[in-house]
Order: sequence, then C-alpha cells, then structure tokens
Amino acid sequence: MVIKETLQHREAVRGGAGSVDFYYAVPKEMCDDYMRMFARLDINPLSSIGRHQHVGETEPYYILSGEGIFIDNDGNRTPVRRGDVCIIREGDFHAIENPSETEILSLMAVIYKQE
Amino acid sequence: MVIKETLQHREAVRGGAGSVDFYYAVPKEMCDDYMRMFARLDINPLSSIGRHQHVGETEPYYILSGEGIFIDNDGNRTPVRRGDVCIIREGDFHAIENPSETEILSLMAVIYKQE
Repeated sequence: MVIKETLQHREAVRGGAGSVDFYYAVPKEMCDDYMRMFARLDINPLSSIGRHQHVGETEPYYILSGEGIFIDNDGNRTPVRRGDVCIIREGDFHAIENPSETEILSLMAVIYKQE
Repeated sequence: MVIKETLQHREAVRGGAGSVDFYYAVPKEMCDDYMRMFARLDINPLSSIGRHQHVGETEPYYILSGEGIFIDNDGNRTPVRRGDVCIIREGDFHAIENPSETEILSLMAVIYKQE
C-alpha cells in the first residue's frame, strides 16, 4: 500500500521557539507500542524543539539537511549537519535548535519502545 | 551523543539489480529487538531491492527523492516519489525498483518488531 505523508504544522514544540512542520510517514493510527512515530521534521528558521525526555522509549534523529545544534542530557551543545545522527538513551533529556535565519533544518525521527 | 552515519555499499540486494548504498543512522550494534534498522537507502540508477518478506517485523519506506516503482505483496506496481510512504504489513512480500538511468532513488527505511 502506498500512501502520502501527513503534514502537521506545530508551534512551540516542547516549549521551543518558532515552529516545526511534522511530515508523518506512518500515520498515527498505524503506529503501535513498538514503533510510535516515524516522521520527517522540518524545523523552521530560528525555531527549535524544546528540552524533553522520553521514558520507556527513545528517539534517534538523522539529519537530512540544514545545520543545527543538538543539546544532550548534560547540556552539551553539538553542531549537526547532513549525515549526523543524534543518539538518545532511554530517559535522557534532549533538545535541538535551528539557528539559521534562512535555512530549514530537516531530519528524520523515529520513536520506538526501549526498556 | 552525536555520531556519523555508516555507509555500506551492497550489490544485488535481496536478489535485486545493481547496487544500493545503505547509510545506517543507528549503528547495527545499537539496534535491538524492537528497532532493527534505521537507515537511508540510496538505490542507484537501474537498481532495485528484490522481492523479500519480513516475518515478525515490518519495514515502511519513506521516499525522500527520485522516482521509483513499489511492488506490493500482490504484485501491484505503484509509482512512488518524494513524500510517498510504502506501508508493508507483517509477513507481506515487497520490492522496489529505480527505473531511472541517471537519478538516485533515496528513501528512509525503518525495520521494527511487529506481531
């Protein structure tokens, strides 16, 4: 079965700045306890996803384009770009920022169960 | 933690034509029983991933760029392009082809447990 991605525009995601466009690959109703989200996230210029935590699951980010700053559980700020992967341990806090005034920071995110 | 993607060039994937470049986001050693692969697959011109089946798991594809043909369990051939999602039920056979002579067909794939 071939379907189209589903777009959801969200402001102040997890208390972050600006807005993020969520392009859901697997529709929410087709997610399950094992795989809870599979989506492309376009973080708009000067926008961010605020600091948050996943308990009982994790959420690696794979950077597709643009340049951003990943903030890990300990507050370390690491520049990221195409081909970089943000690995987040179960229970860790994390955030990501797009400091560009013009470019979108685009990434793929998958949220899955982890014990 | 921020890491780099890991490239693996593979020929005749699942008996398909040509070659596919696997850019693993989550390294194999960090995958687990719930999430078994998270990768960008660049299917090279005139290449394909042959017909195969996932038992006890599933593998949606999210098309990033290029144009391809998705072949489902019943042999239906559906054109796919950016923003299309190939949904594969547990146990279904599937294949994907890149008929272009010049363009890469790039997609994100996640393989996860499904019962």
